[in-house]
Order: sequence, then C-alpha cells, then structure tokens
Amino acid sequence: LIKEYEDDAHQYVPTLGIPDDEFVTVKKLITKEEVRVVTLAKLKLRHDMCLWDIGAGSGSICIEADHLLPNGKIFAIERNEECRQFIKENLQKFNTRNVSLIEGVAPDCLEELPDPDRVFIGGSGGRLWDILDTVDHRLATGGRIVLNAITLDTLTAANEYFGNAGYNVEVVTVNIARTRPLSDYKMFEAYNPVYILTAVKE
Amino acid sequence: LIKEYEDDAHQYVPTLGIPDDEFVTVKKLITKEEVRVVTLAKLKLRHDMCLWDIGAGSGSICIEADHLLPNGKIFAIERNEECRQFIKENLQKFNTRNVSLIEGVAPDCLEELPDPDRVFIGGSGGRLWDILDTVDHRLATGGRIVLNAITLDTLTAANEYFGNAGYNVEVVTVNIARTRPLSDYKMFEAYNPVYILTAVKE
Amino acid sequence: LIKEYEDDAHQYVPTLGIPDDEFVTVKKLITKEEVRVVTLAKLKLRHDMCLWDIGAGSGSICIEADHLLPNGKIFAIERNEECRQFIKENLQKFNTRNVSLIEGVAPDCLEELPDPDRVFIGGSGGRLWDILDTVDHRLATGGRIVLNAITLDTLTAANEYFGNAGYNVEVVTVNIARTRPLSDYKMFEAYNPVYILTAVKE
Amino acid sequence: LIKEYEDDAHQYVPTLGIPDDEFVTVKKLITKEEVRVVTLAKLKLRHDMCLWDIGAGSGSICIEADHLLPNGKIFAIERNEECRQFIKENLQKFNTRNVSLIEGVAPDCLEELPDPDRVFIGGSGGRLWDILDTVDHRLATGGRIVLNAITLDTLTAANEYFGNAGYNVEVVTVNIARTRPLSDYKMFEAYNPVYILTAVKE
Repeated sequence: LIKEYEDDAHQYVPTLGIPDDEFVTVKKLITKEEVRVVTLAKLKLRHDMCLWDIGAGSGSICIEADHLLPNGKIFAIERNEECRQFIKENLQKFNTRNVSLIEGVAPDCLEELPDPDRVFIGGSGGRLWDILDTVDHRLATGGRIVLNAITLDTLTAANEYFGNAGYNVEVVTVNIARTRPLSDYKMFEAYNPVYILTAVKE
Repeated sequence: LIKEYEDDAHQYVPTLGIPDDEFVTVKKLITKEEVRVVTLAKLKLRHDMCLWDIGAGSGSICIEADHLLPNGKIFAIERNEECRQFIKENLQKFNTRNVSLIEGVAPDCLEELPDPDRVFIGGSGGRLWDILDTVDHRLATGGRIVLNAITLDTLTAANEYFGNAGYNVEVVTVNIARTRPLSDYKMFEAYNPVYILTAVKE
Repeated sequence: LIKEYEDDAHQYVPTLGIPDDEFVTVKKLITKEEVRVVTLAKLKLRHDMCLWDIGAGSGSICIEADHLLPNGKIFAIERNEECRQFIKENLQKFNTRNVSLIEGVAPDCLEELPDPDRVFIGGSGGRLWDILDTVDHRLATGGRIVLNAITLDTLTAANEYFGNAGYNVEVVTVNIARTRPLSDYKMFEAYNPVYILTAVKE
Repeated sequence: LIKEYEDDAHQYVPTLGIPDDEFVTVKKLITKEEVRVVTLAKLKLRHDMCLWDIGAGSGSICIEADHLLPNGKIFAIERNEECRQFIKENLQKFNTRNVSLIEGVAPDCLEELPDPDRVFIGGSGGRLWDILDTVDHRLATGGRIVLNAITLDTLTAANEYFGNAGYNVEVVTVNIARTRPLSDYKMFEAYNPVYILTAVKE
C-alpha cells in the first residue's frame, strides 16, 4: 500500500476513515477509527461551518473534519504540550487546510475564537461544567455539541447539564469489537464502550 | 461540495451523517446512520475512485459516498423495483452528482460496468458466492470489498470466501444503542448487531 | 432441589436458566433469561438469606432465586394487580417453596417484612429515591442491592444515591444478541441493553 | 468480608456468582463471572445429571455447576498440567462434592467416562471436530452441548458441525462492560465478546 502523504496527500489519504495507526499519538488517547466517524456523523457538519475541537488529543477528529469542512474553520484546542506536538505532526502529515491549533486551557482560551456552529468535546481536564457554560453562551440556536464519554461520571454530568440548559439530547452507546489474528484464528477484541452525547440547542 | 435541497438554506444536507429518516425507504431496510458511516470509513474511499454498491436498498450508502467521491463514479445496483423507486427519489432529493442507478440482478448486470476500486455489498439476493467471484475477477490489487452481514450464515460464507481467495480480512462487530424518549426518561434501544467485513485484495 | 411440574418427568425445571417463554407474563416485562442469571450472580445469594424482590413483574427473578435460597426467605413485592396474577400462576407452576407475594406499594409495604440481606429492584414506580432510603435503613452492613436500569435516568439516579450513601458501586452493562431463524438463516437480534448496578453497604 | 471456605464452605460461598478473583488461575484463562453464569443457564442443568466440562481451565464452570447438580456427576477434563494444579486448588477451596478431575487429552480420555447429559466445551486444543464427533456419539437425544467461542473460526466450525449433525442451534453473543475506578471516576471497561453456542440434540 503506497502512501506518499507529503508529496501528494490529496491523492492517497482516504476522504474518510484514516486508520488509527496513521496518526502520531499516545496509543490510548486516540478516538478509535470507528468511533471517530460516528462522532463526525453526529456533528452533522456543513461545508462552511466553524468547529471547535476541545481536548483535541492527537487531532484525529479535526483532521478528518477538515475533509468535511472544505470552506470552514476548525480550531483544535489542547492544553497538553506533548499532545500539541502530536497534533502539529499530524496536521502537517495530512496537509490540513482549515485547522488552527490553539495552545491554552479551555474555557479560558475560547474567548478569542469566532463563535462555533459545532463543538466537539473529547476531553475537559476536569472543567466540564465551565466549558459547557462557555460553549452554551457562544453557540447559536440550532448549533450542536457532541461529547464522547468513557466514564459514567462524565456521561451523567453532561446529560444533566444539557437537560438543565434545555438542549435536545440523544445518547448513543457504541460497542465495537475487531478481529485480530491469533495464530491462524481471528479473535474478537473489544474496544471499551463510548457514550456519544449529541446536544442540539433549541 | 455545496448541497442544497428544497430551496431552503436551513436544510443544507450535512457532508456526513444524513439522519435515517431523511431517506425514503422501507424502514427496516436502511443501514442505520451510525453503521453507515463506519461502513464508509472501512471503504477508505479516495476522491476519484469507482465504487459498486451491490444491493443498494434505499441508496443511503451511495448518497453519502457521493460527498466523499467528488471526482468518482458510483454505481447503485438494485434488483428490487420498489427499492429502485426509493433510490430514485433519494438521489433526486439529495441532488447526487456521481451516482448511476443500475437496474438488474448481480452478478449478471455487473459486466457492463467499469472495474471497481471499491465494492460494498449490502445484499446478495442469495447469490453471494457468484457475486464475490465476479467482484474478485474485476477488482484490482489493493482494492477493497466491504460487506455488512446481519446473519451468522452470511458472516461465515463471506469470511470463508475471502480466506480461500487470499484476501486480508478484518471483521468488526458494531453494537449500537440509542436513547429514545419514554415519558420523561431516556430509554436505551439497541439496534441489531452488524458484522462489517473488510477484505483487501493483496 | 427436585422440581416436577405437569406430572411429566421430562419437564423437570432446570436448576438455573428457566427459558423466558416458560413464564406467564406480559412479554416486554420479563427480565430476559441471560440478564436474569447475571442479576442473580450479582446478588451473591447464600443458602439462608432473606431477599426482597421489589417490582417483581412476572416473578422470574424470585422463582430462580428460590433454587439458590433453599433455606431462605424471598418476598416478591408487586403493586400491579395484573402482574400479581402472573406471579401467582408462575409460583404455582414452578412449585416454589420460599417465595411470599406481597401486595402493596413500595416502600410503604416494606415495613412489615423482616430485614433483608439482599434486595433486587426491578421497578420502582417512580419512587426510586424513597425505596432506596427505606432499603438503606433496613439493610445490614455487607448487604447488597442490585438494580437493573434500562433508562439513563434510573442509571444516573441510582448511581448518585449509592454514591452519596457511601455504598461501593459497580455497574455492568449487558449487551446480548440472540440468533433467531430467518428462513434458512440465523439472524442476530439484539436485546435492549441493561445496566446492572450492584451496591454493597460498607 | 469474612471468608472461611475451608471451615464452612456451605455458609460463605454464594450459591451462584463466585467472583473471578476467588479462583486461583491464569488471569486471562478464566470465563468471566457474568459469562460463566449465562453459560450455566444455557446448560439447563437438572439436579441429577452428568456433565462433562471439556477444557476446564481453572474449574470455575464445574465448581459453580456443583451447586446446581447436588445429585449429579461432573467431570472436569483438562490436558494442561498447570491448569490441573489450579483446578485441584480450587476444588479444595470450594469444597466441591461431585467434581472429578480427569487428566488427559480429549477426546481420547472421554472413553472411560459415563455418558453425558450435558457437555460444556471451553477449549478444544485444536481438536474441536474430533471432540464434537465423540460427544455426538455419546450424548442422548435431548442432550445439550454448550460451547464458548472467542474466535470467529471456532464459532464458524462449531456452527457448521452442529448444522450438519442435525442439532438445533442457538448462538448468543455476550458483550459486557464493567466499571472500574479511575481516580474519582467510574470508567467502563469492556470484556472481549463471547459467542455462546447451545446445541440441542433432536
């Protein structure tokens, strides 16, 4: 399989479904390929929207979103220095056009950004409630927030926030298992479940 | 990538993740939104590829693929007349650019089509083995076949075929549940599991 | 542990795993066979314990528990008259020895019962908090409460209660699919997911 | 939590649902608590039956079955010496009454055993087909075989065998996730999926 991202990224990267191992990352931090695309589908991006990716991790969500927002703006917010290095490498490798990396801590660093149409929250650094409050003030009616929870606590807190703030909320649980070769056999290996919350501002 | 329908700027279609109920369809036939995007991710489409969608059903896969193949060709193959009517309505509603509807029974009707880079098999009408044989002869090295199985029998048969024919096979099981409102509560409702087989020709 | 019914030696009941369709019930109300036995396992019953089954439904949990509590006491609490009729028929059919049916509304009707070692909550009729408060006052240290939640709201409320009250809580999500014949094929059909909360009083 | 198995096993071991970490074992080899009880439910044991447990591993299945077969006979067959040591320790710890440990390789060592009413296959050492052939010759009409598959290959092979041999087959997929504490949070961790095949001889 020939890959020549630096020379000709547009030709060889898939327009959706970049394999996890194509990203430079701390292995456990990445949103798995399958969960990533369900997350993108829930965002219901339109070509010219503004997306905030809060807790961008390795940048995989905003790198795939770049294909879906050809005339849009994407802000990758990440407070961890090591992760930001990964994001920089990945942005370069995949030759993204519309992604800006924001160094800072959410929600403080959000002030300078243009209002979002869509917000993805992949991590909150323990400040979920503050982040949601800030996002709520900046998001227009009809806007969408998508949040991936891997703990019961985040699931509960986010669901409570959205309920109180009058959002229309859907929760999707995603349980995926993938075969990996085990001698001559295909053994099923499970990912940990992810709860994808989608909140629409009414 | 700009899409408008019903002359209504507020009803732009998302570039990924069209909700299931936007498609005209027999309800049980549609590949659910979340499974649909995982399927598209597994196809790893590139902008100018040729995709065969065998057993296109309501056309949801090829309508979403149309956004991911701006310079490509998509053939929606469907033998059922009622389904073809749904596909026609959906193609028009979503204003697809690169999808051709093929009336006929696979594998017979595949002869006239250009060679595929990617093949999705959503239904086989009981002729899975013949279809796979034909696809195998037409698919180039490095090409990909993605098949969604909802029965143990199809999972087994396809896996056996791909193993014998020397493909590199991955199986992903997708278990999704979605909340729906039940009086004031959010009740989890499960979709039936889907087995997504991805076979790469080596 | 010998059980006979309908005078037919070939129809001995199994000591664990009574099929769902052996119970008289409203079909949707029964805890599915697989979920039922995981629930029983979480209760960690010992031979002479006292079990409260609150919201007993069709009685399937306490009928299976009867085998596991040969020297114990089981109280099936159910406020719905139609369900109580089902329970009566099922208790008779399966010839239980240690189950008493309590007609009344929890938590009010719990006062008259002996203190429990184990409590299963299958339904709360909208009074979950009151029921948990009453159970908490009556349960000894080391006692266990098991609760099956099918809504996000019940999962959240119960988890919050147990956290505040100082219980050690584990949540298990159970996603089961079972094949059913579809012409010659075995099609996978999913049950809705169930969240089994186990709270141990410390 | 006081445990005094040696002195008073009957009093302190639960009659169902022994926690995984109570067994001496290689950690990855044990059938998880929740899967174990679903497996036992599928066996539909009656009080005086004869059970073969082929590939007994740590003995957890036959130790729990011992409670459900008070007048029965259980044969734990295990070819691995290290595993047999674990089984011996576990049998002693849980003070089982009806379990006999068989040192040998299935199907060869099955010849000496009495005919089974129920057979559980947890491992086959690469000789699945031979084992199923032998079991099929010894099992009476109405008998049951339960097999836990964690690979697609075993699932496929067993399903094919049972289909050819005229058994009535049900497949249940079990996807479980359990919360574990992560600092102050409850994080969901998935077990790998297990396919429980139940074959009834007609």
